Amino acid sequence: MSYSTQAQTLTYGPVISLEQAKKVFAAAEAEAKKNQWLMTIAIVDSGGNLVLLQRMDNANIGTVEIARGKATTANNFKRPTRSLEEAVEKGGIGLRLLAVPGVFPLEGGELILLDGKIIGAIGVSGAQSFQDGQVAKAGVAALTAK
Amino acid sequence: MSYSTQAQTLTYGPVISLEQAKKVFAAAEAEAKKNQWLMTIAIVDSGGNLVLLQRMDNANIGTVEIARGKATTANNFKRPTRSLEEAVEKGGIGLRLLAVPGVFPLEGGELILLDGKIIGAIGVSGAQSFQDGQVAKAGVAALTAK
Amino acid sequence: MSYSTQAQTLTYGPVISLEQAKKVFAAAEAEAKKNQWLMTIAIVDSGGNLVLLQRMDNANIGTVEIARGKATTANNFKRPTRSLEEAVEKGGIGLRLLAVPGVFPLEGGELILLDGKIIGAIGVSGAQSFQDGQVAKAGVAALTAK
Amino acid sequence: MSYSTQAQTLTYGPVISLEQAKKVFAAAEAEAKKNQWLMTIAIVDSGGNLVLLQRMDNANIGTVEIARGKATTANNFKRPTRSLEEAVEKGGIGLRLLAVPGVFPLEGGELILLDGKIIGAIGVSGAQSFQDGQVAKAGVAALTAK
Repeated sequence: MSYSTQAQTLTYGPVISLEQAKKVFAAAEAEAKKNQWLMTIAIVDSGGNLVLLQRMDNANIGTVEIARGKATTANNFKRPTRSLEEAVEKGGIGLRLLAVPGVFPLEGGELILLDGKIIGAIGVSGAQSFQDGQVAKAGVAALTAK
Repeated sequence: MSYSTQAQTLTYGPVISLEQAKKVFAAAEAEAKKNQWLMTIAIVDSGGNLVLLQRMDNANIGTVEIARGKATTANNFKRPTRSLEEAVEKGGIGLRLLAVPGVFPLEGGELILLDGKIIGAIGVSGAQSFQDGQVAKAGVAALTAK
Repeated sequence: MSYSTQAQTLTYGPVISLEQAKKVFAAAEAEAKKNQWLMTIAIVDSGGNLVLLQRMDNANIGTVEIARGKATTANNFKRPTRSLEEAVEKGGIGLRLLAVPGVFPLEGGELILLDGKIIGAIGVSGAQSFQDGQVAKAGVAALTAK
Repeated sequence: MSYSTQAQTLTYGPVISLEQAKKVFAAAEAEAKKNQWLMTIAIVDSGGNLVLLQRMDNANIGTVEIARGKATTANNFKRPTRSLEEAVEKGGIGLRLLAVPGVFPLEGGELILLDGKIIGAIGVSGAQSFQDGQVAKAGVAALTAK
């Protein structure tokens, strides 16, 4: 599985700065607003610790913990949460992930890389999970493009 | 998925009053008694905080946390818990919900709306889950009818 | 310490019925209303499991867990929570109680006895703790008087 | 005790909007920066649910949960957390607060009022607790001044 390989080769870099987190956040929020999705967007650093979180007016209360959980999961397992969702989706051995506290196997968590190293991750919750993923990726792209 | 759409359009209103909660509760309890079901019935406000809970004589001890969890889940995800149960029931990707702490994907949690806004939710536990749902809906109907 | 002695001699009886819990609750609520105190009142059975909980409009959100915690503490330690509060108040060895998860050493939790046996406990939160205690005792008195 | 009185008379209003939360946050952050304090600032709504959180570069990782906890405590107990800190500081009976899960009795949590009603609370962590309180109050003042 390529993500296991990635998890072996990717290394943690310095922690994302608040300035960088704001850029990622702004791009993600713009994508969400463009689509009129009510969301919580969370960003953690490469230590898995929360840097920034915002919940839009009337976004589900439940999105707070899920957005944060997706970001932490992506960072702490060095992979997009979609890959864990996929493992659960396939069933069988993949279901074991459901037993691990703190693992959120739902699309919408993406790694934030800088110079090839993980500096943190973004987690998005509020719409359908592939839409959450779309917003998370838009956030990541903003930093990578610089 | 219609409930994702609903979660985008429904808004949280003021918190349910104790008086309103009692009306919802009374109608739910009447439905339960009519069917001789031993249940716990819980009501939370639009912040997800508990307002009222009662466990009938000899209802399972386990119903306390489930009734409360269903109510919180409905409110915090802006949808009947049946829609989450259905997702799990279908298997595959829907199983990911089992990983999210605080999510009770079991029928029997229903939103309480007033003037089109969420003021809280009711959660019922004790019988089969579709029966729990029947009681929860009877409770909600009482307030809506006024 | 008399409460340790009490804890040795008092025995758990049958679980409080919902009907009995309602009587205790009604008397406690009346005392609270008379004083215009905004409170949460909770009643647990002799198994320490929740039977009834109500939060008044605008009572602190924080009262929910405290009322429940006081009731559970009284029942599970066979004594009014005031005796544990007192132990903390005295300092020294009494402070060890702060280390025990689930112990709420705050006045306002009282045992409910019937025929000399514990059938449950009431917990009250919302005003100053001696006022919480006053309301809890008013609740208990209603059942004992019958 | 005046804060018990306040807890009886203050009422919860609607949830703070993200726009209002941003105003409170901006003023708090400005106060922190002016003093070169590295902090986490968190804002919750009147349901005690997180709306906004930011941790400055190099602020203690531990500030994340403390800032959030102070905000929740202020909101859920309808008072500045300083009043709870003071109770603990005095020792004796005040130490009982240390036993209550979710209570953060540390200065730096302040209520956010609008038209005399609680719409949420701010929690600040990172410097000495009276400095945390200074930053929290600066945040609150920004909204009140409008």
